[in-house]
Amino acid sequence: MKLLRFGEPGKEKVGAIDADGAVRDLSGKVHALDSAKFEGGLLDELAGLDLAEFPVVTAPGRLGVPWEGISKYICIGLNYSDHAAEAGMPLPQRPIVFLKAPSAICGPNDDTLQPVGSTKLDWEVELGVVIGRTARNVSEERAADFIAGYCVLNDVSERAFQMETTQWAKGKGCDTFGPIGPWLVTPDEIVDPGKLDLWLDVNGVRMQTGNTDKMVFPVAALIADLSRCMTLLPGDVIATGTPPGVGMGIKPEPVWLKPGDVVELGIAGLGQQRQTVVATPPM
Amino acid sequence: MKLLRFGEPGKEKVGAIDADGAVRDLSGKVHALDSAKFEGGLLDELAGLDLAEFPVVTAPGRLGVPWEGISKYICIGLNYSDHAAEAGMPLPQRPIVFLKAPSAICGPNDDTLQPVGSTKLDWEVELGVVIGRTARNVSEERAADFIAGYCVLNDVSERAFQMETTQWAKGKGCDTFGPIGPWLVTPDEIVDPGKLDLWLDVNGVRMQTGNTDKMVFPVAALIADLSRCMTLLPGDVIATGTPPGVGMGIKPEPVWLKPGDVVELGIAGLGQQRQTVVATPPM
Repeated sequence: MKLLRFGEPGKEKVGAIDADGAVRDLSGKVHALDSAKFEGGLLDELAGLDLAEFPVVTAPGRLGVPWEGISKYICIGLNYSDHAAEAGMPLPQRPIVFLKAPSAICGPNDDTLQPVGSTKLDWEVELGVVIGRTARNVSEERAADFIAGYCVLNDVSERAFQMETTQWAKGKGCDTFGPIGPWLVTPDEIVDPGKLDLWLDVNGVRMQTGNTDKMVFPVAALIADLSRCMTLLPGDVIATGTPPGVGMGIKPEPVWLKPGDVVELGIAGLGQQRQTVVATPPM
Repeated sequence: MKLLRFGEPGKEKVGAIDADGAVRDLSGKVHALDSAKFEGGLLDELAGLDLAEFPVVTAPGRLGVPWEGISKYICIGLNYSDHAAEAGMPLPQRPIVFLKAPSAICGPNDDTLQPVGSTKLDWEVELGVVIGRTARNVSEERAADFIAGYCVLNDVSERAFQMETTQWAKGKGCDTFGPIGPWLVTPDEIVDPGKLDLWLDVNGVRMQTGNTDKMVFPVAALIADLSRCMTLLPGDVIATGTPPGVGMGIKPEPVWLKPGDVVELGIAGLGQQRQTVVATPPM
């Protein structure tokens, strides 16, 4: 099932994509796609619906984050072997974990605001893993039981802020640096999260091409490692790392985003996003 | 004003400390100390109350986190010149910023759960700054206007997890690693947040002694730097760094916490905390 939320910020309705690719309005049945209800069986309940019984939305307009209630946006660094090579970094021996500020989260096609003082604005297409059940000390073998679904993420990054000190949070958590969606895709639609093609274009030019089979630590290993260190809650999202082709890695000179640039990105079976970069409006 | 919440997890009532140090039950007047209402004047409204009109609570029992609605727990690394010297690290040129997982947050006297696999459990007394108004690109001069109050924090840390990779989040975000309280103390009670004594004892032995006058980046500088990178929201808390005396820095050998140890800590005017270390209970 491909779940989504459509409408202006704070007023989104719940919908789903039908077999013809049309948006069906589920708001008559379910008021909110609230991750606090994932453990109560909300997703199973939705999976039992006959979408043909719900109205088609011909003009859904803006898309919101596909679900509500994200307490943690967890990022994994240097998790693609080909990206680590591009960055000139050794392969990590253990997953590199940092957090993106939740205030950075936005809809999949919302504008990317370039922060005041930003000089090195960059992109990162990533597979997002969404937690469906409270997870503590989960083994790799059981990890799949804790996944609510998958989604497309752009881990937008300001490299100058990121590299100001040893810790990366400053360059990852700026407002609008966490577009999520278009959909939350339940695991029944994804045969193998370790074999998904990813891509990202800037102004129509392909910059990133990859496949999740290049992950150093696959999804199950990440859930096991993270749930050893912190309790994963329903609705938490894990950004599983990015393939090669980020702006920082381009030779002979890096390429940075600027106002007016358009970033499009997608993952096979998970849909695509489109952001326009804009300067931060005056206070 | 010293605000607090007392009662079992999820059932806390709002209270305040009166001039005699007794807890007054404000639950007849205010249902929740919800940071979403800080911008609506909730704290001003409470400041106008005559505490003598509210019942004394003779046995408040457990204390909860003093306020609700924390979306970001932001930490500053190596922010005391004497602690940086102890750690053998150069003074940071810019604030070092990382995030603590919100799932780590707990009441000020709740047990500290030692995670499975933990071998290097450590302590860090820190001044907490609580945001009262949405803050973006705030100057140092205006920073004080965005502060709801101050509190005691223990930035509990698992150094083996923290140092597994370059990024520290794994060792900072374990469950119960974020005790907050006992009180949210409004700024009218704190003459100068840059001149506060801090202390921490383990099993009755003084381990940390410091004063916030040793901060490399004072509170106003931190708010300015952070609000350039991310929007600070009401209820967000900033852990402003720790003075010398953490277990990791003890010579000739570091000292780590173990089950049964008792950690007590406090800051002048902000009250004190007490945690007992316990092993993680079986699943």
